[in-house]
Amino acid sequence: MNAATEARNETSIEVDSKVPMVTITRDFDAPVGLVFRAYTEPDLFRQWIGPRNRTFELQEFDCRTGGAWRYSTTDDDFEARFFGAFHEVRTDERIVQTFTYEGFPDSVALETATFEDLGGGRSRVTSTSLVDSFEGRDAFVASGMETGVVEGYEKLDELLETLA
Amino acid sequence: MNAATEARNETSIEVDSKVPMVTITRDFDAPVGLVFRAYTEPDLFRQWIGPRNRTFELQEFDCRTGGAWRYSTTDDDFEARFFGAFHEVRTDERIVQTFTYEGFPDSVALETATFEDLGGGRSRVTSTSLVDSFEGRDAFVASGMETGVVEGYEKLDELLETLA
Repeated sequence: MNAATEARNETSIEVDSKVPMVTITRDFDAPVGLVFRAYTEPDLFRQWIGPRNRTFELQEFDCRTGGAWRYSTTDDDFEARFFGAFHEVRTDERIVQTFTYEGFPDSVALETATFEDLGGGRSRVTSTSLVDSFEGRDAFVASGMETGVVEGYEKLDELLETLA
Repeated sequence: MNAATEARNETSIEVDSKVPMVTITRDFDAPVGLVFRAYTEPDLFRQWIGPRNRTFELQEFDCRTGGAWRYSTTDDDFEARFFGAFHEVRTDERIVQTFTYEGFPDSVALETATFEDLGGGRSRVTSTSLVDSFEGRDAFVASGMETGVVEGYEKLDELLETLA
């Protein structure tokens, strides 16, 4: 990716003061329909999700209302496994899903990604992640999720450029 | 149901002060395996869920990790539709699912039911419902959900008695 893109499209990660939620906001230099495809088509999704230094494997990705997903990421030392269900998928608008890291099997996040047309071929994705305690939310933020999110979105920038 | 059962097995509905969650606790005079079956088998579930004065119709009920559900309740005036996904189903232990009432299509609750063996053929179900705002949580509690929950559990008492 080039420096201009990097400077313009920063990833904002904010914690809510009233409820145990994290909100991530990111703009993309691509139309909302293309960004939505990258979130919902398994052959695109697998190319950008997660940090750069781990091997990603998608075991299941039935991205529709009532579908389910399961993936793992691996480096030399460690395999991390994740799973969830798609509560609702509204084309070009919204994806609501659940999320569990199997290392904390009783912790479940409710995640909503909202897609917005910014005009001029640009778009915004606002992602919220809600859990049942502030301690759990803060531990999640402190766990290094920011690296995965920021690097994933950089890979998504690159993928969107090749698809344009 | 008899009066003794009614007096012993009261339904507790509590709102959390820190997070936008409702916790419902209810004991049953039946072993945990039987109560879990009544939650997960469609032909049993349809017999007890919801208030007494509405016709219940189950359109979809794939109660397994990664499955989905959809049902409606109808009285003379009004059909209410609901849908969600099963995030995880652990036999005799735990069901985590999402829940949306289509009248408020952007509102999603994350619901966890935990099943506990109390010994002596009795069991406890603790159900939490987490949403993303206190206003939404309080509106849900004020909407008359208590009637549906209490009457549903009374019907479940009756069903469990016939299954015992």
